[in-house]
Amino acid sequence: MPHYKAPVDDVRFLLNDVLQIRRYDNLPGFSDLSGDVLDAILTEAAKFCEEVVAPLNASGDREGCTRHPDGRVTTPAGFKDAYAQYVAGGWMGISAPSAFGGQGLPETMTTIVNEFMVSASLAFAMYPALTQGAIAALVIHANDELKRKFLPKMIEGRWTGTMNLTEPQCGTDLGLLRTKAVKQADGSYKLTGTKIFISAGEHDLSENIIHLVLARIEGAPAGIKGTSLFVVPKLAVSADGSAGGPNGVTCGSIEEKMGIHGNATCVLNYEDATGWLIGEENRGINAMFVMMNEARLAVGVQGLALSEVAYQNAAAYAKERLQGRALTGPKAPDKPADPIIVHPDVRRVLLTIKALNEGGRALALWTALQADVAHRSDDEKTRQAADDALGLLTPVIKGVLTDRGFANAVAAQQVFGGHGYIVETGVEQFVRDARITMIYEGANGIQALDLVGRKLPRDGGRAVMAFFSEVGAFAKEHAADEAMKPFVAPLEKALGRTQAATMWFVQNAMGNPDNGAAGATDYMHLFGLTATGYMWARMAKAAHTKLTADANAKDAMQAKLATARFYMERVLPETGTFLARIQAGAESTMALPAEAF
Amino acid sequence: MPHYKAPVDDVRFLLNDVLQIRRYDNLPGFSDLSGDVLDAILTEAAKFCEEVVAPLNASGDREGCTRHPDGRVTTPAGFKDAYAQYVAGGWMGISAPSAFGGQGLPETMTTIVNEFMVSASLAFAMYPALTQGAIAALVIHANDELKRKFLPKMIEGRWTGTMNLTEPQCGTDLGLLRTKAVKQADGSYKLTGTKIFISAGEHDLSENIIHLVLARIEGAPAGIKGTSLFVVPKLAVSADGSAGGPNGVTCGSIEEKMGIHGNATCVLNYEDATGWLIGEENRGINAMFVMMNEARLAVGVQGLALSEVAYQNAAAYAKERLQGRALTGPKAPDKPADPIIVHPDVRRVLLTIKALNEGGRALALWTALQADVAHRSDDEKTRQAADDALGLLTPVIKGVLTDRGFANAVAAQQVFGGHGYIVETGVEQFVRDARITMIYEGANGIQALDLVGRKLPRDGGRAVMAFFSEVGAFAKEHAADEAMKPFVAPLEKALGRTQAATMWFVQNAMGNPDNGAAGATDYMHLFGLTATGYMWARMAKAAHTKLTADANAKDAMQAKLATARFYMERVLPETGTFLARIQAGAESTMALPAEAF
Repeated sequence: MPHYKAPVDDVRFLLNDVLQIRRYDNLPGFSDLSGDVLDAILTEAAKFCEEVVAPLNASGDREGCTRHPDGRVTTPAGFKDAYAQYVAGGWMGISAPSAFGGQGLPETMTTIVNEFMVSASLAFAMYPALTQGAIAALVIHANDELKRKFLPKMIEGRWTGTMNLTEPQCGTDLGLLRTKAVKQADGSYKLTGTKIFISAGEHDLSENIIHLVLARIEGAPAGIKGTSLFVVPKLAVSADGSAGGPNGVTCGSIEEKMGIHGNATCVLNYEDATGWLIGEENRGINAMFVMMNEARLAVGVQGLALSEVAYQNAAAYAKERLQGRALTGPKAPDKPADPIIVHPDVRRVLLTIKALNEGGRALALWTALQADVAHRSDDEKTRQAADDALGLLTPVIKGVLTDRGFANAVAAQQVFGGHGYIVETGVEQFVRDARITMIYEGANGIQALDLVGRKLPRDGGRAVMAFFSEVGAFAKEHAADEAMKPFVAPLEKALGRTQAATMWFVQNAMGNPDNGAAGATDYMHLFGLTATGYMWARMAKAAHTKLTADANAKDAMQAKLATARFYMERVLPETGTFLARIQAGAESTMALPAEAF
Repeated sequence: MPHYKAPVDDVRFLLNDVLQIRRYDNLPGFSDLSGDVLDAILTEAAKFCEEVVAPLNASGDREGCTRHPDGRVTTPAGFKDAYAQYVAGGWMGISAPSAFGGQGLPETMTTIVNEFMVSASLAFAMYPALTQGAIAALVIHANDELKRKFLPKMIEGRWTGTMNLTEPQCGTDLGLLRTKAVKQADGSYKLTGTKIFISAGEHDLSENIIHLVLARIEGAPAGIKGTSLFVVPKLAVSADGSAGGPNGVTCGSIEEKMGIHGNATCVLNYEDATGWLIGEENRGINAMFVMMNEARLAVGVQGLALSEVAYQNAAAYAKERLQGRALTGPKAPDKPADPIIVHPDVRRVLLTIKALNEGGRALALWTALQADVAHRSDDEKTRQAADDALGLLTPVIKGVLTDRGFANAVAAQQVFGGHGYIVETGVEQFVRDARITMIYEGANGIQALDLVGRKLPRDGGRAVMAFFSEVGAFAKEHAADEAMKPFVAPLEKALGRTQAATMWFVQNAMGNPDNGAAGATDYMHLFGLTATGYMWARMAKAAHTKLTADANAKDAMQAKLATARFYMERVLPETGTFLARIQAGAESTMALPAEAF
């Protein structure tokens, strides 16, 4: 059976020493987060995830969800009780507005807690995660009446949420959607259509399920500019906010999937279901984007979280499993063989995962802080700069942390040898579960196109220029520091490659957009490794500082520095391949006629 | 439901135009393989795999194997009948010695047929594949009496085979094995012990199962030099060669696994089971190596085969699925959207898989031909050179084709978006099945160590020097050919990197073996991409020749050239990353203390 221990010390190091969260105490919610409150949240979240959620992960995978003939769906044994504890702990709303019952703490705290939750069980964590995404969309786009009606119970956790975009003929290309909405005399709408792949679409955890549904109002223009967003509760909600009878939404079936068996992936049939418009008519995609951006950051962290729990189990196994002898002579001569962690190739695998996890966590929390600043600062320029960074980094976090997270789970599985392929060992579940994170919330190829096609050129490249100048300034500032040389020099090289790739797009993708799209995935990974390299350089700086200031931190900080060096020497060089591929251009990608595939 | 079409035309191009199989007609078995015989084998094998085996793959995955309370194991519905057809078709022994009922055709033909078989169903194909490995070990190491007793029925397919190495405490490190063998007065042995992870260990397809078992003779030295190989039938075999009653081998349980559900992975308990020594006492590992090398080549091809079938399904989906519009303007203006194959990022994914598959197939068949030459040539120098190449390439084929094969199956799954995660689509099974190929027959990290630690230094580097000079000579020969420049220049660059990495090992790994081991996996992939690049350059040359000679081949040969260019521009650059990692040395890999993981 796999084990999990939340990386509380690493989070503390990031918040206190690297990102220096106290610098943000001028923002609403941050000053409420005293050191004691922060510690209490981390400790309690860790405890809940390790002791309540993690034990349900393997059994939930084996049992899966069950759809009953009447359309009800029940979750695996234990999910309902664990969810009740989640609600009782007040976890859903820690970052939600206090006006509707939330605690108003930084969104960064939700990002941290959600990492722990997903490491414990992705299938379980998805139920609250989707609710938090729906809350975010309602907070920003719904009118006051809808907010009052839905938000308090959702923030409490008694009602959960979903997002309904996909239809059989319409995945990435939302302009193809057909679900129709007909306006009623009272201002509400009747929705009819079929949505598929709706995660947490029907289940027994909450009293009501609040669906956010993209649909086309009768007579709306064709394509994406004719879509509107609606809130459609599973059970009708009366004026006093209480849930009543069925509202024309039924679960037609649940999918049999590769993983996340504990989360119900539903076909939802809408038949004259009553819904209310959120935001403006035909501007549904704009409202949906809020939810999607929030969700994309969260899904990136899911990739990290599964990589983390897979790593922990592989590292523990590598220290226990005795097989072979170190090439430089026996390390455990009293035992029949050495633990396999003596072998360089096993270390290579584990260090690659460890370096990407700790670097990825830094990047995710740095980005989450940008979200907090973007949403809470009272200074417009500060907000804009943070929003730029958030927009730029969101597709990178989603795409890179999930591609790498899955690859890391696969690599961790490899450490177990044949045992890794056996269900009972538990690590193969992490691989199957992690696979979905590369697909949902916009497949990673779409993230790459979002980055290259939208985020780079936006506002004349303002966001990417600011990023380059921040990283460049850091490198310059520490260039003369002897202790920082092993980190600064490789970072500068990676930065140079990212700048060269960006320049190549400027020169070659304007005239031929295929040149941008053919290199988009490589660019996303180039950017992701460089940004993670920047995080590792900052962590190295913080580790040096802490080494001299805090004798107790010696082992932990020396481990940080060793991992930082590994990242620079063994992970960052891949940036060279990405640049070479980008600069090859689209010609050989586009040459083959479709029928020759 | 996935479909499969065996790549018969591609195999013909490789055998006839690239590898020019007619040049080997002086070897036994090759002259029997006339053009008509070759065509008949390819056509019949394709038909059997497409029509009989492939339809069982998904249902076999869903049903899995069943162990009954009495220890019997039954395979999924349809497997027994399909296996009977396999036997009736004479497929098991097409390359086996005619003295024992085989057809004596080149081993290359078995490699080809096995690729088709695995694409159709890995779980099914493993039953014969393990038998063929056992046949190979018996042919080379068993005495005449044992050969007469076991080989005819195995080559016919009425009896199947297995290999028994792993025990709970003993995986990679075979020196730790405990199964004991006690010599009897009649020269036989009684074996007692527990073997785990025995593929095809117990099932209902054949009349008897012939286990090849590694065990320790009472009083043998400790470690790997005290292990011997035995043949132990499930049912006792009398002097006349007929099967009798049980022989002390029982299936204690079967494993629940990530994939290959249709193949029974057994715990086998030996209790005074009667076996006979194969080869010399305490030299079991040498005899086992024959079987393992054969099996490693076969497993490499399994990675390719799953990549191929995953590719075929992804390519078909990409041509059908309508979503979005081409960046350069609509390509199917009469439809609601363009097929997704217009998108550069989808093409990037598909072309990467296609280029690795066709290049990998060339590499596998080239290596299989080396095996034929090594085993059949009457010239000692020719045999030695082929055996050198075979030894060098076997770990590369196993490690690279399975690492890439799995990654390719994952990439193919991505093309399906959310549908790829659904069991019904069928592509997620290819991912789960492909995962085992990176693990069994020596985990890929072990392949890399075999390459760097054993195959490179052997005989003063004779094998690798011969490989470098062959590739170098090809590049030199075609350097002035304008049409070959796009292929020769990148190949030379990759060759230079592989030579630089080899030289780095010579200079740095002798004194510190960790420097070799820390770079071993990167070296294996560097070597694999370079060798595949050599194959692509040869294919490009053959395509150019055929383009001028055969007007009917125009489309196919232009597709070859386009794919070759993609390989050179978009796949081969990764060699730069591998070299950089190798040259970073082991220091950062070894620095972190075990307790800091």
